[in-house]
Amino acid sequence: MSTWSEAGPRTVEQHAAAVAALLGPTGTETVPLADASGRVLAEDLSAGVALPPFDNSAMDGYAVRAAELAGASESAPVELPVAADLPAGRTDVPALEPGTVARIMTGAPVPEGADAIVPVERTDAGTERVRITAAPEPGAFVRRAGEDTTAGAVLLTAGTVLGAPQIGLAAAVGRPVLPVRRRPHVLVLSTGSELVAPGEPLQPGQIYESNGTMLAVAVREAGATAELLSFVPDDVERFRAVLADRASGTGPDRPDLVLTSGGVSAGAYEVVKDAMTGHGVEFGKVAMQPGGPQGCGRLDLGGTSVAVATLPGNPVSSLVSFEAFVRPALRAAMGHPAPARPVVSARLAGELSSPAGKRQFRRGVLDATTGTVAEVGTAGSHLIAALARADCLIDLPAATTSVADGEPVAVWLLDT
Amino acid sequence: MSTWSEAGPRTVEQHAAAVAALLGPTGTETVPLADASGRVLAEDLSAGVALPPFDNSAMDGYAVRAAELAGASESAPVELPVAADLPAGRTDVPALEPGTVARIMTGAPVPEGADAIVPVERTDAGTERVRITAAPEPGAFVRRAGEDTTAGAVLLTAGTVLGAPQIGLAAAVGRPVLPVRRRPHVLVLSTGSELVAPGEPLQPGQIYESNGTMLAVAVREAGATAELLSFVPDDVERFRAVLADRASGTGPDRPDLVLTSGGVSAGAYEVVKDAMTGHGVEFGKVAMQPGGPQGCGRLDLGGTSVAVATLPGNPVSSLVSFEAFVRPALRAAMGHPAPARPVVSARLAGELSSPAGKRQFRRGVLDATTGTVAEVGTAGSHLIAALARADCLIDLPAATTSVADGEPVAVWLLDT
Repeated sequence: MSTWSEAGPRTVEQHAAAVAALLGPTGTETVPLADASGRVLAEDLSAGVALPPFDNSAMDGYAVRAAELAGASESAPVELPVAADLPAGRTDVPALEPGTVARIMTGAPVPEGADAIVPVERTDAGTERVRITAAPEPGAFVRRAGEDTTAGAVLLTAGTVLGAPQIGLAAAVGRPVLPVRRRPHVLVLSTGSELVAPGEPLQPGQIYESNGTMLAVAVREAGATAELLSFVPDDVERFRAVLADRASGTGPDRPDLVLTSGGVSAGAYEVVKDAMTGHGVEFGKVAMQPGGPQGCGRLDLGGTSVAVATLPGNPVSSLVSFEAFVRPALRAAMGHPAPARPVVSARLAGELSSPAGKRQFRRGVLDATTGTVAEVGTAGSHLIAALARADCLIDLPAATTSVADGEPVAVWLLDT
Repeated sequence: MSTWSEAGPRTVEQHAAAVAALLGPTGTETVPLADASGRVLAEDLSAGVALPPFDNSAMDGYAVRAAELAGASESAPVELPVAADLPAGRTDVPALEPGTVARIMTGAPVPEGADAIVPVERTDAGTERVRITAAPEPGAFVRRAGEDTTAGAVLLTAGTVLGAPQIGLAAAVGRPVLPVRRRPHVLVLSTGSELVAPGEPLQPGQIYESNGTMLAVAVREAGATAELLSFVPDDVERFRAVLADRASGTGPDRPDLVLTSGGVSAGAYEVVKDAMTGHGVEFGKVAMQPGGPQGCGRLDLGGTSVAVATLPGNPVSSLVSFEAFVRPALRAAMGHPAPARPVVSARLAGELSSPAGKRQFRRGVLDATTGTVAEVGTAGSHLIAALARADCLIDLPAATTSVADGEPVAVWLLDT
């Protein structure tokens, strides 16, 4: 098996597959309904009860025997005694004696013997006796038990992303908790002696730490959990010791993935590269811009190991790499049915050129009304201000060297 | 001013405006960057520093005076002494003496006197002296201070929804916290004597509480905060006392909106209706299906008051009403630039009929590839199992009575 550097640059797809392969499918955990939003259902959800659980009234009105009202009309009302009052929630519903009706509220159980509901609007709303001015069809305004679902039926299949309607359904069939796929936990490392925490004064030559903060947010937006470990030691042994300590843990903060940005330049002292090279993490190039220099692997920490993805340090490179490699891997690991960003076709407003042999991701703003996309900023990988105004990435294939105004381009939607 | 019931049914737009008018714009609070995801920026964000803050190298290589290398080539390399080693983060960068170069890493400050970077690949990578085999253009591989943004420039405008790139940008310009619009707080009430908590045994005539759970999740998915108050007292005075206690609070759990579902049937004893009628909350009809019976207003609680929206009790009616009235109102209140769900046009797969005079929202599944939408389930407002399989609402105008196969319909996207 040739090494990455021997084999030459990877395609975006090849490196995405390599990163995804580092993460196995996450296991199952049980969460209360209120915490299930956005989670992926781990097992099929079947109905513990039928819905509705019993025949019930679709209207406020009267439960009747339809045959007894066959001739009722405005001009020939039928008057019958009201034998019972049935609010919703009444659990001791008496059977309907022939020749009587029962006052009934929406959702209340239809009494045995009744076969139709007459809406209150078709009556004089009497409480002792009631005058009914319309002849109901048998079955009118009765919601049958099991009409929505029968008991035991599969309501949602494993892999469904849970939102308000799905959680409401689980509640409706009596489930207080749901089995969902565990979120991967990502340890985001911020390394670099030039970095200063936001809010602190900046010396000449220093910049504010932003990649770690940005990537931790991006991890959470992908549905995983993140912990940002800022300003880890620049000493290789101490750096490895910090990772070994985390990777050998057994709690929920044991990382499924360690994510770094920067620190992998050629030639210089770089803690990330020095601590990982030769220990299971490979570094190489991906034929893309921005984001060429990448690394990934399972870092051997002596007795334990942890999956690692190293992203380049320029903020735009870092975020584009996250979008291309890490986000889909995290979502696939937790069983998300759509790990990738939605991709749409749009017509380019303006012109773009792109180097041959490298897939380019340019920052864009999509106008959904006209179906056009315009570049924001330029190709420079340090232009985070432009990145922050973008809502999509314009995906230019490796073979593309120019795109003319109005030509179609593929666009990754970032804000959905 | 005529009352709602005198004026006749409201349109969806009229009732949406009435609910939105109950909620004033929320104020501003300051949150750490890590908590800013999904929040709406409350003030323009300006750059505290330029980006980049200083001229820096775009490559690992050597900082040079371009004029001194005018003739350098593979066949005629130029050798110069390496006067300094400049890693990223070095704050005491000496000026470059004529006739020397400085070894420099990506991101490190370009020394005074240097005007270009020669990438390490165009050299022998020497550390004492270096042989350079290419003549750089002045300015090559130098990222100029302020190229991305100048200090003081407005980077993001108030109203921007914050995600990873925007939060990364705030960090990059040194901001540890951001001013964001406060989330509205919603108190979701679950009322009804027929309701049983999921997980408990069900008696005949009882159903599981699901609307409150579903609506609380929907509120949080809209970006607001929710507290579910289950099984509130059925006694009108105690019910009002519970609300007065909450509404007169000053903490973050003081509700901006009280949301109820069900409990407003005509004719029967209904705590919500009885506690609110004549105290500032109006009940009436909206010309829509599902979700006709609605109510809203500012509930006078004697010395205090609170905004209330009452939704119908059938689960589908409840969720559709939330989508049509409450979600856009909550998002508008927190300054979201796009309060409404995205609406697209799709061709109907199959046929639909709809009653004249009522706007219908049917549950659908959109096939984005073919641009078609198919109904899930039927129009029945109790069919929550079908609702849970839908990813959109098919919006049929009041005047529409039938839609033929292949005709365009408006579709509200629920899962974005």
